[in-house]
Amino acid sequence: MAQGRTRPGGGGLFVTFEGGDGAGKSTQAALLETWLTEAGRTVVRTREPGGTELGDELREIVLHRRGHIAPRAEALIYAADRAHHVATLVRPALARGEVVIQDRYLDSSVAYQGAGREIDGGEIRNVSLWATEGLLPDLTVLLDLDPAIGRTRLDAARTRYDRLEAEAAEFHGRVRDAYLALAAAEPERFLVLDATLPVEELAAAIRARVAELVG
Amino acid sequence: MAQGRTRPGGGGLFVTFEGGDGAGKSTQAALLETWLTEAGRTVVRTREPGGTELGDELREIVLHRRGHIAPRAEALIYAADRAHHVATLVRPALARGEVVIQDRYLDSSVAYQGAGREIDGGEIRNVSLWATEGLLPDLTVLLDLDPAIGRTRLDAARTRYDRLEAEAAEFHGRVRDAYLALAAAEPERFLVLDATLPVEELAAAIRARVAELVG
Repeated sequence: MAQGRTRPGGGGLFVTFEGGDGAGKSTQAALLETWLTEAGRTVVRTREPGGTELGDELREIVLHRRGHIAPRAEALIYAADRAHHVATLVRPALARGEVVIQDRYLDSSVAYQGAGREIDGGEIRNVSLWATEGLLPDLTVLLDLDPAIGRTRLDAARTRYDRLEAEAAEFHGRVRDAYLALAAAEPERFLVLDATLPVEELAAAIRARVAELVG
Repeated sequence: MAQGRTRPGGGGLFVTFEGGDGAGKSTQAALLETWLTEAGRTVVRTREPGGTELGDELREIVLHRRGHIAPRAEALIYAADRAHHVATLVRPALARGEVVIQDRYLDSSVAYQGAGREIDGGEIRNVSLWATEGLLPDLTVLLDLDPAIGRTRLDAARTRYDRLEAEAAEFHGRVRDAYLALAAAEPERFLVLDATLPVEELAAAIRARVAELVG
């Protein structure tokens, strides 16, 4: 399986946003899009899963189907969505020299599916790299946040956790640890930011790194 | 990715039938099922793609969807179908000690997708082995047939090929070559039979090999 990093050339830039729910990915992606567009760049904003018609059909199967789906089947459906999305949308945009800003990419699969403990994260990564012919982002912004704070942002009224919610908190703690391990393994690709910082301070840090990459 | 062969134990037997269209796979699978059932074995007959409810949904997407599907996305959807089919149907039956007789399995993916030349056959095989956690059949019966004869069986009235049909004939020649190469690489797993032999002669040869395996 493909392990390496391959880029389509053409001067494009591929930026992904990662992190737990409530970390502010959409806000920061929108601010970066505005800044780049005002600077005259053509920006494609997209997301996974979904982002293409086929992807929406596959997403519907994974997220809304009644009944059990075998863990590897689920991982392969996500990988199929990613393969199609990269081949038909991301790579063509990069080849045209555009900037692709994407909410979640392969690091989400590794962090979430790996944290679920049913499949090894390294294997999930290999499947994704095969699916995408080795496409890695130029920059991945990880908005790091204590899951308890993310939960509070999403649901400020809740004051205590029941047993199921506590398990969920433990799961999200594993997701956070997995993200930080991925960032530590590829420090050049990742920009790790403390998601509790003010929105404008985060946006400035992201702009500074992107400015280095676009020259 | 998983490369090895893993068996669930339990005394089951996993037999797959491979070969081009018109080679007689369904006929021989049915004869083997009848013989084993009369001998008191519990037999599960199934097929890919499909064979489960999720598989049917995925098959519908691959076979009947309008519009292009990226080659690796298609390969991954087939692999997802296989992962679910093996995890929810094939492995449980083998663990119960039953015989699974299946029309097409991973060798079909390798032979057909590899012959299409868009993706390397070895990579297709690796994806399938990951999907199935390395499950290989105990016996694969390859019904080998000149594609021109298979075509004649399917459509006896046709007397000449147009350009597209000739290309199709060349494609099916590559599929046949790929099958024979797979059989040569794993002679212990494959039983290669000349599909032009009489039906009962083929059935006897298959029964003889299966009898060795069930002891």
